[in-house]
Amino acid sequence: MGRSVDCGQRMIAPRDRYRRPIPVLTQLTVREYTARLASGEPTPGGGSGAGLVAALGAALGEMVANFTVGKEKYRDAWEHVAPVLAQLTAHRDRLLDLTDRDADAYAQVGAAYGMAKDTDEQKAARAEAIQEALKAAASVPLGVCEEVAAALELLPVLLLHGNPNLVSDVGVAAELGEAAFRCAWLNVEINFASIKDEAYKARMRKHLEDLMALAENTAVAVWDETVRRVRGA
Amino acid sequence: MGRSVDCGQRMIAPRDRYRRPIPVLTQLTVREYTARLASGEPTPGGGSGAGLVAALGAALGEMVANFTVGKEKYRDAWEHVAPVLAQLTAHRDRLLDLTDRDADAYAQVGAAYGMAKDTDEQKAARAEAIQEALKAAASVPLGVCEEVAAALELLPVLLLHGNPNLVSDVGVAAELGEAAFRCAWLNVEINFASIKDEAYKARMRKHLEDLMALAENTAVAVWDETVRRVRGA
Repeated sequence: MGRSVDCGQRMIAPRDRYRRPIPVLTQLTVREYTARLASGEPTPGGGSGAGLVAALGAALGEMVANFTVGKEKYRDAWEHVAPVLAQLTAHRDRLLDLTDRDADAYAQVGAAYGMAKDTDEQKAARAEAIQEALKAAASVPLGVCEEVAAALELLPVLLLHGNPNLVSDVGVAAELGEAAFRCAWLNVEINFASIKDEAYKARMRKHLEDLMALAENTAVAVWDETVRRVRGA
Repeated sequence: MGRSVDCGQRMIAPRDRYRRPIPVLTQLTVREYTARLASGEPTPGGGSGAGLVAALGAALGEMVANFTVGKEKYRDAWEHVAPVLAQLTAHRDRLLDLTDRDADAYAQVGAAYGMAKDTDEQKAARAEAIQEALKAAASVPLGVCEEVAAALELLPVLLLHGNPNLVSDVGVAAELGEAAFRCAWLNVEINFASIKDEAYKARMRKHLEDLMALAENTAVAVWDETVRRVRGA
């Protein structure tokens, strides 16, 4: 293992480190994943963790839907809840894919920093590769933000039509979604610190600001209504 | 599988359901765990998810510590960060144990609800067993709250002495800790809805209120300082 390179985030070791295969993170056991997250390995990091937390939030929404659809007592709710279930499952799948992709994207940044920089041409090629890799890396937490914002919009349907015995799980889904959004947003920003394309950054920041307003409003409303119901139970 | 019994939370099937072995949740792969969380199985639920999110937060704090201790550049920080690393690892281990225990505790509640209730004596024994099982089930998210509150208190040391390249991971750790606390708290409250011992509930609520004030103050302070540094980078 060679000298570490500072890319403005975790310390990244040069290329040779990334010749080692990266495990598919979501195929690790829960204990293995958390141990690797805790370790001095550069991946997974906070971006992958944010994707996983978002997936857990979507899964809790699905659980509420699964305790509604197919239960005779809630037959009138099925037509409202079944489409939400299908959409949340799709969000969870994509969020777990992003959880895995974060490590690859991060490895690409490390590889770009490890490129030769002896001649002016090499330096220019390396600088361009770094910028491309940083944008690709930022696209992962950006994707988490987009998935979470869309998943959160489905939760009010579960408050209206879902099995009321699982109301606390709707609140937990909202809370985890909001936290995952904020964590992913911070991971976009830390990537932006090293990205030089100001127009790209301004465009993405506006996009994220709109998504965050939507996500936070929905999450807070769902959480508050959940707490009201749990306390009134 | 028999008729489901409503215990004020998820619908719980009678005893026979719990004769099936429950897998050790943290030994499932990340994909398997999230799929089971999403499913119509009664466990894991929101309480287990809260324990896992708290463990992910602790793990991210450990990652920051692991990129500090042993790195020559940060030698002066080692004496401050090494004890934090050891404590966060202990918190993570206990949080993952709680993530597993949530399913067992929940199964005990289901088993108590499934007890015979033909005679008055059986009814009394069943009612007592249900109350005991609900208290045991509440102790799991209560334990998550205690572990998270203690873990959050360690994060300011990482902001002061940790590798500054990983500052965003300290912020993510704080955000996940805060969200996990709130989710665990909600799971305590949903259990309380069925617990009749008012003195016990009042004592626990006061304890949780104190912990929450501490946890939220620390999490918000760490998050705000992280955002300030990331934006200033």
